[in-house]
Amino acid sequence: MRLSTRNQLTGIIVEVDLGAVMATVRVQLDGGDQVVTSAITKEAAEDLGLEVGQAATVLVKSTDVSIGVE
Amino acid sequence: MRLSTRNQLTGIIVEVDLGAVMATVRVQLDGGDQVVTSAITKEAAEDLGLEVGQAATVLVKSTDVSIGVE
Amino acid sequence: MRLSTRNQLTGIIVEVDLGAVMATVRVQLDGGDQVVTSAITKEAAEDLGLEVGQAATVLVKSTDVSIGVE
Amino acid sequence: MRLSTRNQLTGIIVEVDLGAVMATVRVQLDGGDQVVTSAITKEAAEDLGLEVGQAATVLVKSTDVSIGVE
Amino acid sequence: MRLSTRNQLTGIIVEVDLGAVMATVRVQLDGGDQVVTSAITKEAAEDLGLEVGQAATVLVKSTDVSIGVE
Amino acid sequence: MRLSTRNQLTGIIVEVDLGAVMATVRVQLDGGDQVVTSAITKEAAEDLGLEVGQAATVLVKSTDVSIGVE
Repeated sequence: MRLSTRNQLTGIIVEVDLGAVMATVRVQLDGGDQVVTSAITKEAAEDLGLEVGQAATVLVKSTDVSIGVE
Repeated sequence: MRLSTRNQLTGIIVEVDLGAVMATVRVQLDGGDQVVTSAITKEAAEDLGLEVGQAATVLVKSTDVSIGVE
Repeated sequence: MRLSTRNQLTGIIVEVDLGAVMATVRVQLDGGDQVVTSAITKEAAEDLGLEVGQAATVLVKSTDVSIGVE
Repeated sequence: MRLSTRNQLTGIIVEVDLGAVMATVRVQLDGGDQVVTSAITKEAAEDLGLEVGQAATVLVKSTDVSIGVE
Repeated sequence: MRLSTRNQLTGIIVEVDLGAVMATVRVQLDGGDQVVTSAITKEAAEDLGLEVGQAATVLVKSTDVSIGVE
Repeated sequence: MRLSTRNQLTGIIVEVDLGAVMATVRVQLDGGDQVVTSAITKEAAEDLGLEVGQAATVLVKSTDVSIGVE
């Protein structure tokens, strides 16, 4: 399936933390040291079988991206 | 100001496109070839004086990040 | 790619409206009369070649869904 | 109150899962088999007294809806 | 309809700006000088008949609120 | 850093509730009785050292603000 979602950044999962109904997942982006944190439902994390070391894509809709400048 | 926003990725603005009331901005992330697209209000883009070549930070709240795996 | 996005509803595109930098797309859900409106970047709508009559999936992250009751 | 929120889909609550500070709620949409998952604060779920079998509306802002096509 | 949406702040509309497919609306909150900007679809703004001077409620889901501290 | 985020409302933290991986924070806005609830990651709440009585800014992107009218 091709998605309208503009931002699809590839990386490797470096942390999965399962909570009560939510989970946080950290992905280190390819080609750099930058890490992205995602908060998804625990059910989604379990359904996908997310594990540290696994390749993953982080997806962000453009309307959810803010900009900062000095 | 320190922000709760977990994802603050640095880069360089490579495109600014002003629409009627919205604008899209593209930022190439440091240390890689990945580009992030942001859709913000035109007013915000003008207030910040965003220009191609300018250093910028893209900010994304963790709850707005989805994960995909093969 | 399998996605963490919990809500993936299938339907048919019934309207595409291209603006200056944004676009709105309406999808009639299968098995009912309910219609979903999406606001995405114009670039995304054009990249996907969205057209009326085309099958499409609407995707919504669980954290973006509110609940109302009488 | 009339809302700007374009997407207001009606259905029946089929699951309520209370976590520590968040909760997930699943609503089966009328006129079909499609189910929508919502992640809201536990406080909201308790304030509304959400229960399985109750009629409910799921609300999604258009800017939070992505599109996928084959 | 009672909503799970935690943040429902009342005020007066002070600006409506219709774009191509989107619109921006500014609401001055009651009991203070703080103004909130909303970006919604043009269709929503027209359907609601939004006008300067009209009482309005701004609604924000808790998962869309970030926190900053000095 | 100057932000594209249009809505930056100042207030005082009146409640911090840490969950498993998420946290909720309530901020009473200056110049009024209105309170805003935020759901952020527990990690963010701890990193910022959020405490009751502390001055804070709530930040909301314009695309995350809906409008209601009677």
